[in-house]
Amino acid sequence: MRISELSRRSGVPNATIKYYLREGLLPPGRATAATQAEYDETHLRRLRLIRALTGVRGLSVAEAKQVLDAMTEHRNDTHELLGIAFGIRPAGTGAPDAAEAHPEAAALVDAMGWSVSAGNPARQTIDRTLETLRSLDIDYDWRALLPYAELAERTARHDLDRIAAITDPLEKAEHAVLLTFLLEPALMALRRLAQENESTARHTGEGPAARPAPPEGRDR
Amino acid sequence: MRISELSRRSGVPNATIKYYLREGLLPPGRATAATQAEYDETHLRRLRLIRALTGVRGLSVAEAKQVLDAMTEHRNDTHELLGIAFGIRPAGTGAPDAAEAHPEAAALVDAMGWSVSAGNPARQTIDRTLETLRSLDIDYDWRALLPYAELAERTARHDLDRIAAITDPLEKAEHAVLLTFLLEPALMALRRLAQENESTARHTGEGPAARPAPPEGRDR
Repeated sequence: MRISELSRRSGVPNATIKYYLREGLLPPGRATAATQAEYDETHLRRLRLIRALTGVRGLSVAEAKQVLDAMTEHRNDTHELLGIAFGIRPAGTGAPDAAEAHPEAAALVDAMGWSVSAGNPARQTIDRTLETLRSLDIDYDWRALLPYAELAERTARHDLDRIAAITDPLEKAEHAVLLTFLLEPALMALRRLAQENESTARHTGEGPAARPAPPEGRDR
Repeated sequence: MRISELSRRSGVPNATIKYYLREGLLPPGRATAATQAEYDETHLRRLRLIRALTGVRGLSVAEAKQVLDAMTEHRNDTHELLGIAFGIRPAGTGAPDAAEAHPEAAALVDAMGWSVSAGNPARQTIDRTLETLRSLDIDYDWRALLPYAELAERTARHDLDRIAAITDPLEKAEHAVLLTFLLEPALMALRRLAQENESTARHTGEGPAARPAPPEGRDR
């Protein structure tokens, strides 16, 4: 397809597509004339991924390029690709860091029996959040996160199930990025809705959640 | 305590405290002289809440004031207070809206049997996220969120358990705000860590998650 159709189908303006081409976020099309090139579905998919990384989740163009380059480089190693997709630093956290730098995350990962790379930037988020809570006199340490970690484990299983059917490794990683990033606001919104429902059940006696809670524990 | 000690214990600069006093986010202290006032623990707690709302989660001072005013107004209605605490619009969403405006969230809430107010702004986040995913050719509707909703339900139960022991309604609502807001990055970080672990288990055969997954279903 021409760049104009690529623009129409992706909803990304011509000028922005050309900018991505110049910056190397989008691979060049197949030249059909001195001033024309043909683009295909891979360009369309890549454009959507760029938009998800920059537009929806606010990575800089440079950050997005790093992610995309890494994904292309490891295109034949699904696990490596997913690691890149899942390891993109959560918004508001700094650069990846060593495990020792985040002792509470390390203790949590250990207690959960998870195998997680030392460089996963989510470790930093765990320790920072706990530090913030304690700075507010809320007594909270990694043990308090264990029930949430068990639910996160089941959430991740749904996430991986969701992309299990995709065979093309790069496409699989692209979906992993999209679902990881784009679902985050929805998952937090679900928690808000469930909180209101639970509060209604406990404080007004309405709602199904008024039923006694089941015994907790690692149901796996 | 004097404003200087309030500043020391809260970590909030004198000038900022005076600004909050002028803007009405912080109730005035008890005047002890023409230019002096005494502050107490309620001021300290309120300051921490203001910092959590503005600093950590990026509400504007005006937005924070609205939340605080509403919490003070409803201080004797725990459910109302928690509704305010939980209903604060998730970052990146617009103003509260009617349920009909968000049909997918309405269908999800209905399917879950939740009692949630029509004005809960999280409804908007649900519909917007699904629209975004579909704009990226990811086939996703509210049904796909059901497994996540069931996990969110259990997460909310942990949240409410966490603050159940607090008797003072206003303090309970303050904790609800803090935990709702401040835990969000950590919960998403837990998902990232669990995703890497699950990916490791599935693609390299390492890790405890290599065990077969249990049959899913609403274990409540």
